[in-house]
Amino acid sequence: MIDVTAFFAADRAAQAAGIELLAFGPGSAHIALTVRPDQGNGLDGVHGGVVFLLADTAFGLACNSYGRPTVARSCQIEFLAGATIGDRLEARATERMRSGRNGIYDVAVMTAPDGLLIAEFRGNSRELRPT
Amino acid sequence: MIDVTAFFAADRAAQAAGIELLAFGPGSAHIALTVRPDQGNGLDGVHGGVVFLLADTAFGLACNSYGRPTVARSCQIEFLAGATIGDRLEARATERMRSGRNGIYDVAVMTAPDGLLIAEFRGNSRELRPT
Amino acid sequence: MIDVTAFFAADRAAQAAGIELLAFGPGSAHIALTVRPDQGNGLDGVHGGVVFLLADTAFGLACNSYGRPTVARSCQIEFLAGATIGDRLEARATERMRSGRNGIYDVAVMTAPDGLLIAEFRGNSRELRPT
Amino acid sequence: MIDVTAFFAADRAAQAAGIELLAFGPGSAHIALTVRPDQGNGLDGVHGGVVFLLADTAFGLACNSYGRPTVARSCQIEFLAGATIGDRLEARATERMRSGRNGIYDVAVMTAPDGLLIAEFRGNSRELRPT
Repeated sequence: MIDVTAFFAADRAAQAAGIELLAFGPGSAHIALTVRPDQGNGLDGVHGGVVFLLADTAFGLACNSYGRPTVARSCQIEFLAGATIGDRLEARATERMRSGRNGIYDVAVMTAPDGLLIAEFRGNSRELRPT
Repeated sequence: MIDVTAFFAADRAAQAAGIELLAFGPGSAHIALTVRPDQGNGLDGVHGGVVFLLADTAFGLACNSYGRPTVARSCQIEFLAGATIGDRLEARATERMRSGRNGIYDVAVMTAPDGLLIAEFRGNSRELRPT
Repeated sequence: MIDVTAFFAADRAAQAAGIELLAFGPGSAHIALTVRPDQGNGLDGVHGGVVFLLADTAFGLACNSYGRPTVARSCQIEFLAGATIGDRLEARATERMRSGRNGIYDVAVMTAPDGLLIAEFRGNSRELRPT
Repeated sequence: MIDVTAFFAADRAAQAAGIELLAFGPGSAHIALTVRPDQGNGLDGVHGGVVFLLADTAFGLACNSYGRPTVARSCQIEFLAGATIGDRLEARATERMRSGRNGIYDVAVMTAPDGLLIAEFRGNSRELRPT
């Protein structure tokens, strides 16, 4: 495994968003975000892009945990319930499969501590070729 | 049509990200972002969540342009090429179909002025029921 | 639970394709197909539509297992490895989440008995309203 | 361009399903299917797998039209309206983008001659490496 804490600290966008690293392991990550006013959308909820950023960050930690630089090839997100400014959101990434240089990771985004499911995210990853 | 300029100005996350509104019409939007250092990922590129936020913002403007509050139900993004800090990205949202309360919108994210395709995004929208 | 065996027997397209029901439970299903020559594509492999049909059938059994008529709203499939005519394929559907009238189901399609992962499928389901 | 007519004639599953080739061009295809009783699902409609097979076949014709063997990497389908046995369905594939060995194709599936939109499909293609 890589030094996940250092990898996370280097993620500028995640830091700027105020994301916190709660736990991690090979192929998994658990992070959180308390939604700030500047993360709202025009309809008084959390911006979908912020929910995606949180899920994508958990995905990035999980798929890079093995120490090989890995990028997102495609992602899909289903928005299942709304969240509002001030809510605490947690994202848990788990590995669905890993084969060759490809991987599939699932991320559930929930409110905490209530556990309302806000979004389900699936990310397809691709390890970069060694240079 | 709604007042798209006011709708965009109310989008806190888009404003905080530094997104600019270039043009809009019924079912379409054209926006831009010059990537800041705090929008980078841990691998020296632009964070995928920032690319998504840009695409999703264009989608939100396009699907709300008719004046009925509309939310994202699901989104899919394919990452086709990387971008780096300082790059100028443009996102163009177009309407693929709209039927009943459902809509499908495509967003292409490109570098400007080179026109390298960075990502293709598809968003499924759902009009909220009148309350 | 519904009578899954009768539900499966009524699925004309699944029967015509030669799909076999191996096991089922609440929110899950396990089915198989031995690929026939008339299920090939133009490149000497199994037609992607046949792999999808197998996965979608497992999804349909799993999401209808509770006895409320439920349909597919959207599906996504990743093709991870090829299969050829004569191969035996198995699909296992599991429930990722179920909330209100919405559900998300994952289906893995593998060769048997080797267990090579051919495709990963995700289906979003929607219960029909009672009439 | 390849000989699309011959490519289509070699597609065993498309032939077995009764799909008809109506028109084609570089990056595009237009095909049709009159739904048979053995293409129904267990809920009196057309099986989603059959709608996918039709869309996927149009996608395969469009992405292979340039003469380089190309396969589906991933596909997504949104089911927008139901269809029933005896309906005539048409699928039109168009190219959204093509870059390096990757392509994205959109396929609309409609009833004919009414033009009711049944499904929207997006396929991501990948050219095989020359061997």
